[in-house]
Amino acid sequence: MTDRLLARVRAAYDRIAEVDRPEIWISLRPQAEVEAEAAATDPALPLAGRLLAVKGNIDVAGLETTAGCPSYAYEPVRDAPVVARLRAAGAVVLGTTNLDQFATGLVGTRSPYGAVRNAVDPRRISGGSSSGSAVAVALGIADLALGTDTAGSGRVPAAFNGIVGLKPTRGLVPTGGVVPACASLDCVTVFARTLPEAEQALAHLVTGGGAPPARAPGPWRIAVPDAAQLGELDAGWADAFRSTAARLQAAGVRLQPVDLAPFTEAAAMLYEGAFVAERYTAVGDFVDKRTEQDAHDLDPTVAQIIRRSRDIPAHRLFADQERLSALRSRAMAALGDADALLLPTTPGHPTLAEVAADPLGTNARLGRFTNSTNLFDLAAVAVPAGTVAGLPFGVMLIGQAHTDGRLARMAPLLTPSTQVAVVGAHLTGQPLNPQLLALGGRFTRTTATAPCYRLYALPTDPPKPGLVRDSEGGAAIEAEVWELPPAGLGGLVAALPRPMALGSVELADGSRVPGFLCEQTALREAADITSYGSWRTYLHSRG
Amino acid sequence: MTDRLLARVRAAYDRIAEVDRPEIWISLRPQAEVEAEAAATDPALPLAGRLLAVKGNIDVAGLETTAGCPSYAYEPVRDAPVVARLRAAGAVVLGTTNLDQFATGLVGTRSPYGAVRNAVDPRRISGGSSSGSAVAVALGIADLALGTDTAGSGRVPAAFNGIVGLKPTRGLVPTGGVVPACASLDCVTVFARTLPEAEQALAHLVTGGGAPPARAPGPWRIAVPDAAQLGELDAGWADAFRSTAARLQAAGVRLQPVDLAPFTEAAAMLYEGAFVAERYTAVGDFVDKRTEQDAHDLDPTVAQIIRRSRDIPAHRLFADQERLSALRSRAMAALGDADALLLPTTPGHPTLAEVAADPLGTNARLGRFTNSTNLFDLAAVAVPAGTVAGLPFGVMLIGQAHTDGRLARMAPLLTPSTQVAVVGAHLTGQPLNPQLLALGGRFTRTTATAPCYRLYALPTDPPKPGLVRDSEGGAAIEAEVWELPPAGLGGLVAALPRPMALGSVELADGSRVPGFLCEQTALREAADITSYGSWRTYLHSRG
Repeated sequence: MTDRLLARVRAAYDRIAEVDRPEIWISLRPQAEVEAEAAATDPALPLAGRLLAVKGNIDVAGLETTAGCPSYAYEPVRDAPVVARLRAAGAVVLGTTNLDQFATGLVGTRSPYGAVRNAVDPRRISGGSSSGSAVAVALGIADLALGTDTAGSGRVPAAFNGIVGLKPTRGLVPTGGVVPACASLDCVTVFARTLPEAEQALAHLVTGGGAPPARAPGPWRIAVPDAAQLGELDAGWADAFRSTAARLQAAGVRLQPVDLAPFTEAAAMLYEGAFVAERYTAVGDFVDKRTEQDAHDLDPTVAQIIRRSRDIPAHRLFADQERLSALRSRAMAALGDADALLLPTTPGHPTLAEVAADPLGTNARLGRFTNSTNLFDLAAVAVPAGTVAGLPFGVMLIGQAHTDGRLARMAPLLTPSTQVAVVGAHLTGQPLNPQLLALGGRFTRTTATAPCYRLYALPTDPPKPGLVRDSEGGAAIEAEVWELPPAGLGGLVAALPRPMALGSVELADGSRVPGFLCEQTALREAADITSYGSWRTYLHSRG
Repeated sequence: MTDRLLARVRAAYDRIAEVDRPEIWISLRPQAEVEAEAAATDPALPLAGRLLAVKGNIDVAGLETTAGCPSYAYEPVRDAPVVARLRAAGAVVLGTTNLDQFATGLVGTRSPYGAVRNAVDPRRISGGSSSGSAVAVALGIADLALGTDTAGSGRVPAAFNGIVGLKPTRGLVPTGGVVPACASLDCVTVFARTLPEAEQALAHLVTGGGAPPARAPGPWRIAVPDAAQLGELDAGWADAFRSTAARLQAAGVRLQPVDLAPFTEAAAMLYEGAFVAERYTAVGDFVDKRTEQDAHDLDPTVAQIIRRSRDIPAHRLFADQERLSALRSRAMAALGDADALLLPTTPGHPTLAEVAADPLGTNARLGRFTNSTNLFDLAAVAVPAGTVAGLPFGVMLIGQAHTDGRLARMAPLLTPSTQVAVVGAHLTGQPLNPQLLALGGRFTRTTATAPCYRLYALPTDPPKPGLVRDSEGGAAIEAEVWELPPAGLGGLVAALPRPMALGSVELADGSRVPGFLCEQTALREAADITSYGSWRTYLHSRG
């Protein structure tokens, strides 16, 4: 077991060297130190040896807390409670990660430690402010990471890097030992590659358990705004969002319309109104005392936002609080009895160059859907929901305070199902078809493979055909396409007997889907039945 | 969409003909009638076209309610509320299913309509009393089924047939239109092949939502009895149970010891004590009025149980209630702050012959772990947890009233993870290894394939090897075995590029696990590197 923990640490450091993304880290611990800690970890602990990355505004004993500003750095005497709890459960800290300075930004570029590049496409932004934490998890270096979320910092980088971000209800997770952004709104968040891993880590962080509000019986009810209310989205994102909603409906969720206006109006208030003054409360003195000479480690955009907030008068804050309260009432009425609100996590995914060209405008756009969550005291779960043009597409479920667990139960329904092409014993009416049903499969359509496959009758019981690609002498073979949840497709693979295999099968329309193939060695005693064009036709011919 | 619903109905009737299990049904609706109903179903409904089997003690308008006794039959004027709710959500009823008469039994054999054979091994019992419902779902005929559960009738047949059974908190789902077994304990239950499908159906059935009790923060805490407390189990079941608990621990669940004695003592009271008299209250008059001549449609074991309960004095019931109350206090103290109690659903799985030889003894043994759940007013989720000797092995999570949702969140952790053998770019330290981590993978061990494979270097980017079986000229190739959750393995398949495939790979120790193979057609321009015995060695040789 200890060997396994050590192997995991070594793989992480190999990976750190391989990906060459030094901007992820502010303080990366020496490998020998982390290996020694992993070797000394009780393997029976619930998170034994899970590697943890900690956002640079959260205290880790022995490492400097910088909040993304070298001259702000201090050496904490102890771990923040969130770090201490995960360590007590067996997690091993790799280091502290880069962030938009003072957690002020959703881009991941506002840092003297460097702009954090996206895990999938390094020309694009990582998202922020929990930039390094999200990328460390997405690249497989860390298993878990801590972030924070005031405007969306725990969700935007999850969406851009294709991972899960849990933004718990305010107050559920202690914020001691965290450099505040807006102290009354800040939440500590969890990143992981899968929802169960994130939930498991969150369970260790929770301080008090508020009861979720009662819900009326019935299927999950999810509020989905129409396209017009979402405003301008990146190319392909409106379609991806529509597909996600359709997937929920196909899974039996009741979709409800919702007026998004109070949410987006409140979102704009986070930076444009008086609430931003809380950032001055947190670090304004420090920022003001930097003279021109020693200001080189302040990010100019962040410094500007914080300095400008100094002169916001308190009477504006009272007025904004009143306006927010009215918007919150409208928002809750708009949600009605919905269990959650489905939204794209952001309206789009800019490049590093686009952010550099317009630092404030691009950032403001990114927060359109996330900014209101903490102002309204709601819980949120951000999960991947497929890809658009090869880049992760992320969505959020937002629900009432203390519905964190309920949101996590709905979130798996957002995962795209996968297709599988079957040509033989799994066809409708054939002996193995119930296996597809048993794994949650649904029939989609009847089609054929591209005209480059050969079909063989294998000497198996029940009789099965073997499909192999033959670009030169092949034909189109009748196929059915089924939809399966990912776990169902996994179950199909786990139950595969030799010589069957699942590979990528080309269909008549040129698309490729996972489908049944056959190992070539099994064909020696098999009859070539390609000319029948269909397993069913072949079976009928035998009477 | 309507075509899809019709295709589903046709597949179900084809399957009914194919499996030749007439004992599943008491009243199967004519195919044409079901097709017409499916065609008229609004495809936008949340359960549109899901095929529903209804236990024969639950009213379905137009079909006789028999409770497993032909002479008891009546024609209900309307659907039971549970049936009406699922139909209103789009489900289509296939028919009513066989059961242990008057829901009195856990075996599935106590019926004049015939003993229901197990879905996987027809020499074994289906379990009961919701026998036909469970087998209809397990064989892929119905998508959903309703059962009832007093002693374990909604869980035992789920376990024996490898499906999911939800036994909701008492009172959560209305029992109107259901022939009572023990009216104060009866619950309507849901069967489905997957947990999300079962949960989705249950959501439509729930009447009032009780709030779950608060829980102290921390990871899931699951109480697991030690082997001695479980008593005698079938061969291999103790190991399977231990593996299930280990899987929970590996997933970060905190396992806690528990004293099972109050649970098993209460379980014995259900049939041995005074509580069985409630069955006389329900159908005693009817049973008593059957004369010798017309008693042929009474199951002799059931009739004996009910008749014997007539003379139980009320003072014994008061005494038993007092004893139960004390046992419940001990049981709750034993659970402490645990979120759930993990138990095998039954101690073993008898054959039809074993039950025929000892109808009361085999039945009593089956209820050892289930009988106390409703007496203690607890919720339960029964799920498959792998197989033992080719037969389904089922376990239960039992928790406080109104923790139904919480149990459903824990239950996915009980699903066995699957292994995958990697030989190339997915090896630790290689470029695609993070894909395994991203899908929730954990390194298990380094080994080699059986000495019957050839390895080729494919002209791909990144460089990848292709593994193919060659029984005559092959060699042992270095391999790593990783564990993946089923959804992770599915994700791996969904992302497979040609010419990679996942098939069954034989390892050095003779075991077979899913692993990467390569389509033969891709090897034409590939170099045979079998002699290196390892992708890593080959890469090093190239410098």
